[in-house]
This record gives sequence, C-alpha cells and structure tokens, in this order.
Amino acid sequence: MLTRDIQIRVRYKETDAMGFVHHSNYVNYYEVARTEMLREFGTSYKELEDEGIMMPVMEVSMKYLKAAHYDDLLTVRITLVQLPLVKMVFDHEVYNQNGELLNTGKVVLAFMNSRTRRACRAPKWFVEMLEKHM
Amino acid sequence: MLTRDIQIRVRYKETDAMGFVHHSNYVNYYEVARTEMLREFGTSYKELEDEGIMMPVMEVSMKYLKAAHYDDLLTVRITLVQLPLVKMVFDHEVYNQNGELLNTGKVVLAFMNSRTRRACRAPKWFVEMLEKHM
Amino acid sequence: MLTRDIQIRVRYKETDAMGFVHHSNYVNYYEVARTEMLREFGTSYKELEDEGIMMPVMEVSMKYLKAAHYDDLLTVRITLVQLPLVKMVFDHEVYNQNGELLNTGKVVLAFMNSRTRRACRAPKWFVEMLEKHM
Amino acid sequence: MLTRDIQIRVRYKETDAMGFVHHSNYVNYYEVARTEMLREFGTSYKELEDEGIMMPVMEVSMKYLKAAHYDDLLTVRITLVQLPLVKMVFDHEVYNQNGELLNTGKVVLAFMNSRTRRACRAPKWFVEMLEKHM
Repeated sequence: MLTRDIQIRVRYKETDAMGFVHHSNYVNYYEVARTEMLREFGTSYKELEDEGIMMPVMEVSMKYLKAAHYDDLLTVRITLVQLPLVKMVFDHEVYNQNGELLNTGKVVLAFMNSRTRRACRAPKWFVEMLEKHM
Repeated sequence: MLTRDIQIRVRYKETDAMGFVHHSNYVNYYEVARTEMLREFGTSYKELEDEGIMMPVMEVSMKYLKAAHYDDLLTVRITLVQLPLVKMVFDHEVYNQNGELLNTGKVVLAFMNSRTRRACRAPKWFVEMLEKHM
Repeated sequence: MLTRDIQIRVRYKETDAMGFVHHSNYVNYYEVARTEMLREFGTSYKELEDEGIMMPVMEVSMKYLKAAHYDDLLTVRITLVQLPLVKMVFDHEVYNQNGELLNTGKVVLAFMNSRTRRACRAPKWFVEMLEKHM
Repeated sequence: MLTRDIQIRVRYKETDAMGFVHHSNYVNYYEVARTEMLREFGTSYKELEDEGIMMPVMEVSMKYLKAAHYDDLLTVRITLVQLPLVKMVFDHEVYNQNGELLNTGKVVLAFMNSRTRRACRAPKWFVEMLEKHM
C-alpha cells in the first residue's frame, strides 16, 4: 500500500449555486492527486502516454459527507491499494483545512495501448518503480 | 419506477487529450437528465429551490464501458427507482447514437432545508406529483 | 453575413457561488453554437477534423451585461461575419428567455493542418458550402 | 502597478481532443491568479464576500499564441493596472515551463453589493491595502 497527501485549493469556478464545490469536481481532484503521486515516484502519467500507454477510468464510486467551499485548502489522501497488473485501483479521502473528512472515493483505471486502443498490462518498469516505494 | 430518455449532444469542451469524453462529465449528464425528467413531470429543481429545498448529492457510482466522443448524440436513460422519502435514488444508462451502452451510474441525493442546511423530508406535493406518474 | 439562433439550457454545474452562470461558460456556449450552425449547413466540425483540419481559438473578447441563472433557456445568436480565408470570425449575442441581452462576444479561430500543426487555408469545399448559405 | 507570478499545473481534465488546454480554461487560471495575488496582500476574495461584496466579471479579452498541454507548469503573470474605484482591471500573461508566452488576457471586474445586487465602490480598507503594496 502506498499513500500520499496532496493539497488542492478550491477554485471559484468549482463552486455551484448552493455555495458548495460541485460534486463533479472530486474526480478531478483525484486525478490531480494521481498525477502528483506519480511525480513523487519519479515518473509521470505524461511519460506513460509518451510510451504509448493510456489509462482510461473504468469505475468511480464516491461518498459525499460534508461540503467543501471556495478557497478551502483540501488534502486529498490517495492510496494505491496494490501493485497494478491490468488495472490500477486508488482510494481517496478528501479533508478540508480543519481536518474534517468531506468525501471518500475509489477509482479504477485500466491500462490501454494508445495505438491499438486495446487493454494491456502495466509496463514492467512501471510496476517495478511502484514496488520500490511500497 | 419512472424512466425517461434524455438526449445530450457531446460538447468539444467535454473531450480530453485521449479524444474521449472526460469521465467527470457523466455526473453532469445525469444532472441534466434529472432536470429534464422533473420538467416533464410539470415541476423543476428550480421550483424546489424556490421552496427552500436543496438537493446535495450524497453518493455517486459509475461504470465506464465504452468511450463517448465529440458530437456524439447521447441518450441518458434515467430511472427513479422509488418514491423519495428523505433521499432520491436515480439509475442511469448512457447510450450513443448507435445504441451502444457507454456508461451506467447511480446517484443518491438528499433533501436539505436551504435555510437551516439540515436534512429534511421530501415535500408532500413533490412526492404526490411523482406518484401520479408512477 | 450568416446568422443563426441556437438554444442552450443552463446546467446546474455551470452556476457558481454567486448564483450566476460562471463567466467561463460563455465560450463553451459559443462553441456549441458554432457546432450547431455548421450542422445546419450540412457539415460539421467533426467532418473538418476527419479531413485533417483543426480550428484552434486565436482570440476571444466578451462583455457581460446581465447574469444568467440555473435552468435559464438561453438563445445564442451567432453570426459568421465574412467568408473565411485563413481565419473564421464569429460574433455572438446571448439572450435569456425574457429576451434580455446578457452577453456579447467575438471569437476568432484559425485553420490548422492537424498533421503538421501549422496554419492553413480554409478548405475550398468548406468556403463554397458557406457561400451557398450567404 | 502590482505584478505577481502564480504557478498552475495543467490538469488532464483541462485538455481537449486536440491535445491542447481548452481555451475556456484560461479565465479560470486568471481567477486562481487573482485569488492568490489577494492572499499575498494579506486579504482574500472570500473576505470581500464575507463583507457583502461580490465581484462579477464585466469584460474578458484574450489572445492565444501557443498551446498549453497536460502537466505543463504554467506561470500566470498577473498585473493590477491601477487602484480600483468601481472596477478592477487585471492584465495577464501565461507562460509555460520553457518561458514561452502562450496567452495574454485582460479581465475587468465590478464591485457589487451582494445584498442589493447593485454596483458599488471598492471598500476603503481594500483600496488602502492595495496602495500599501504599490
């Protein structure tokens, strides 16, 4: 299991007429957290794309416990549950600056060959790099 | 059970660098479908808001089966599973213009008093209106 | 000069904490209007892309006169100012369901060869098709 | 004149099917830059809202010179042109990590009393605070 904390500041654009962060934004926060987690491991999703790997999202599930607001400083605690084979599974907890848990969510991504647009296995170097941090 | 089909045209803005509709947009498509379903029943989410009711989203779960692309004409088949008491549960299936199932998802919303910002029951007139269409 | 009226329903997602449509959404409304205008002429932006033409936006200018709100039924009056050579210039006026003018804006797009990623001229068939409608 | 440099990492969600950052996102980058500039001055837009001041956008104009891509580290150079009276005018230049100028833009905001929803003057304390940094 690999866990990292990523901070994200809520943008005005992300609020809605209720005065809350619109519920569609959390998957984007998760995506930012994935990007930053990979960067901390010395690679990037961009590098995967350059190698001809895309990672479409296969499943999302989320629970909303408390609202986030404009200018909140969120912490996304992202956890890579296990080493990837053909899928990558991430768990997320989103906290505000008062340590309140606002949202939990799970995202499942597949590995896809960007040329053939077919499912494929995680690249060996990628799995080994993750393994080093486990 | 109440089911309606709502059509939505994919916007360029909704695509991403994979050339697909970004996965965050489906909850917005569901939201459009909820709005249009209520309109067909002779009311609107706006009317609920004017009565002091807000409906924050409590849970979302989605599966992505096939990608959508720019300018696709999507059909969101939205189903209200049962009469609401304190929550409203919707199921969704998203099809493209070739009848291919792209995405399925479930959304749970709560009723909230917009003044007190506390959970409340569905308004009586609202439940009765839905009942007429069941 | 070519003018068309395109209707767009405001989505909840497009509102912000002021209760207004967030100002970033108008360029998306313009984009929807461009798409629908081309469709009425018997072609599509998608068809251009399939021919290896992309149309990146070069300039945008907008004035905001009055706010739009959730569930407003907007009319985007889009005008193609002149036949395109290497650029396409559109003017827009956005009205709400009460006929109030909310926003005006201009968008300039370039033609780009999607393979070389360099500027190019408007395809001949495309200009001729527009000419027929002028 | 007041100038600050704000860094923003491009999110995957912000890309489009051309592989570029969609042109609608730049106004959001400007908005993030305004928020962070005010924070550096020891106040916040949130504080203005808490005092009953809203700042709707009145005008936007932008030029797009070069495309931004996923994971680019952008620098938004934001300039407050003059002390605000009833409007606030910001100029922006957006650079990528290679120092290339991608986009320039201007945003004009009004001060609005959030209760009466009418235009008002900039609060005295707010102008004085900006003056100290000029």
